[in-house]
Amino acid sequence: MAVRPLTFLSDYGAGEFAGVCRAVIARIAPEAPVIDLTHAIARHDVRQGAAALVNALPFAPAGVHLAVVDPGVGTSRRAVAIRVADSDRALVGPDNGLLWPAVARLGGAVEAADISLSPARLEPVSATFHGRDIFAPVAARLALGAALADLGEPFDPAGLTELVSRPPALEPGAELRAEVAYVDGFGNAALVATAADAADAGLRLGRPVAIEVAGRAHHAAYALTFADLEPGGVLVYLNASGALAVAVNRESAAERLGIAGGDTVVLRPR
Amino acid sequence: MAVRPLTFLSDYGAGEFAGVCRAVIARIAPEAPVIDLTHAIARHDVRQGAAALVNALPFAPAGVHLAVVDPGVGTSRRAVAIRVADSDRALVGPDNGLLWPAVARLGGAVEAADISLSPARLEPVSATFHGRDIFAPVAARLALGAALADLGEPFDPAGLTELVSRPPALEPGAELRAEVAYVDGFGNAALVATAADAADAGLRLGRPVAIEVAGRAHHAAYALTFADLEPGGVLVYLNASGALAVAVNRESAAERLGIAGGDTVVLRPR
Amino acid sequence: MAVRPLTFLSDYGAGEFAGVCRAVIARIAPEAPVIDLTHAIARHDVRQGAAALVNALPFAPAGVHLAVVDPGVGTSRRAVAIRVADSDRALVGPDNGLLWPAVARLGGAVEAADISLSPARLEPVSATFHGRDIFAPVAARLALGAALADLGEPFDPAGLTELVSRPPALEPGAELRAEVAYVDGFGNAALVATAADAADAGLRLGRPVAIEVAGRAHHAAYALTFADLEPGGVLVYLNASGALAVAVNRESAAERLGIAGGDTVVLRPR
Repeated sequence: MAVRPLTFLSDYGAGEFAGVCRAVIARIAPEAPVIDLTHAIARHDVRQGAAALVNALPFAPAGVHLAVVDPGVGTSRRAVAIRVADSDRALVGPDNGLLWPAVARLGGAVEAADISLSPARLEPVSATFHGRDIFAPVAARLALGAALADLGEPFDPAGLTELVSRPPALEPGAELRAEVAYVDGFGNAALVATAADAADAGLRLGRPVAIEVAGRAHHAAYALTFADLEPGGVLVYLNASGALAVAVNRESAAERLGIAGGDTVVLRPR
Repeated sequence: MAVRPLTFLSDYGAGEFAGVCRAVIARIAPEAPVIDLTHAIARHDVRQGAAALVNALPFAPAGVHLAVVDPGVGTSRRAVAIRVADSDRALVGPDNGLLWPAVARLGGAVEAADISLSPARLEPVSATFHGRDIFAPVAARLALGAALADLGEPFDPAGLTELVSRPPALEPGAELRAEVAYVDGFGNAALVATAADAADAGLRLGRPVAIEVAGRAHHAAYALTFADLEPGGVLVYLNASGALAVAVNRESAAERLGIAGGDTVVLRPR
Repeated sequence: MAVRPLTFLSDYGAGEFAGVCRAVIARIAPEAPVIDLTHAIARHDVRQGAAALVNALPFAPAGVHLAVVDPGVGTSRRAVAIRVADSDRALVGPDNGLLWPAVARLGGAVEAADISLSPARLEPVSATFHGRDIFAPVAARLALGAALADLGEPFDPAGLTELVSRPPALEPGAELRAEVAYVDGFGNAALVATAADAADAGLRLGRPVAIEVAGRAHHAAYALTFADLEPGGVLVYLNASGALAVAVNRESAAERLGIAGGDTVVLRPR
């Protein structure tokens, strides 16, 4: 079996943690390409990591998807490897919801293994760096073609930890109340809402929108792209992942409007 | 034809945008090496991106040079692929001047194509993420050896958008007034000026220099390297790209002197 | 001889410097994999770079280890390539102590060469960017299998610059006074001390600890992992490299406690 590519996403930042994991993978699977998706997930922000992962994977080659955002490292939370229905993809990471939206999007889990005591782990396993000691070596073995059952203790995939965002509350004609799924690196805020939700709330492309966030009201427009507004203009738009999002042209919406992940944003026609 | 390496430069920062582009390339051209030049160009700073690109390319292997700093994404600005006179190099990115200095340095454009509606693009093309949907897939096809004409609509390369910095105004014996081309990640300010301009203004290596920036005067020295000065000392030097530059030893000149891209700096012997 | 993998560590940050070095390597050794360990070492912090390097290398494949944290670039400090006793590993970088702990851990230097005037260097050598002009091209040649003696002027490895941290001062039963080796990207402070030092000072896992740093006293606990404490709780723990370390759960210890590299921390049972 040919070696498979890996993708790698984490909240490890720019320090050496991601690099050490890459080194571990290169020792075990020197021929396997590693595609860094990002290591700039906000520290311990499982929700942002899950959103970035589910948005990126449809663009990634089939292979092994390693993801580590792991506030519970060293506790009894499960470390898992998952095989999904979508052909020839496996995911590796902590079982804290991080992998769940991606698993669901890739057709659901067909096989799962608890890898906390994997024979592939690096001994001694540290209490704080399971990326290096458990997740990276297991992912590298999967890239080489190892079977899931040889890397951990099988369990029913129905027991995986789910991560569910609250859908927007919407009666016809009502304002749209949507949760902020995550803020990206440019300060744009992706909402748990779609073009259909915007339409139901009466928002029309090219028309003004009233937006409330963090107790303050702002004038915005429902636009196709940033450059439709003046610098500093607030826009509601469909982001590259198909989610409704809030941005400020040439600025950070997070800073200007004080938006953060988990906030509720209220939108209505103006 | 063997697969060609790609270089990749953008203002995408540390978030997942660059990673998703890498994933797109890996799906189309799994054997093509991707060399990340940097993704830390200041957001929307076309001038800084152009300078970093032209300075890096002479050190990069021949292949496909992907560059995305694109404040006009989603507007009518052209998306382009360019073949240059220097053997076997192609550039891909927005036609906003970003590619222009590199194209000029690589011998000029011999072929250009508008790739906005490229058959290689990923549908649906988003309004805000042409790196993923247009530039990365076209660059990957070029790495695989596709012909420019098969990836877009040919146009006269003479129509490419130019980006020209103002040359220093210099009468013999006069002070040197030079524009700041860009500020690098260490806070050093590269000027649109050369060693010859410094000589014309009477600056001599190892001698003191008076420098004016942002309305303030500072004492500096024209030195070979940082360590020629005490920590905190201001120096004028030739940077690794051969441009005259201003730095503060072990500090950020941008912060200490309040220098930014586009500013004018005045230098004279002291 | 097959091409060997390279690892690369520097204080170049997110700008194009590391990318240009990668480009130089790819031109000379296009088949050689480059594993970025990190480029986020604090600028000019030789001590932090040395610690990150020595901690990472045991996890990296044998090959060429390129490291550049070089406050003395352009001065008379030596540029070196070193072959170590541990089979088939070479290190390349400035001779300022950066490489020393890694060399010691890899069995000591068996061969050293001064590469300042290496025939592999890129001419003209700049005064400020030896990563591009000297270190990267020499590392790439080593990855291709070149002999050390062909890349520089041999010298006695006993003359390498050492970097020694002060060991903790410890009489039996006394408090533990330990130096901060470095602060990682999460703000955790690694100490120049081990589990044995903690035991000698009477610290017991799971028990409270009094910690003094920067003239202030704090309550902490000697814990196995972050999640053993409430958010905001101060912990002393063994980090993933086996060093005693100080952290704040879900916060930066560096910011909360005002700890920086080189500080002295005092620990005693409470």
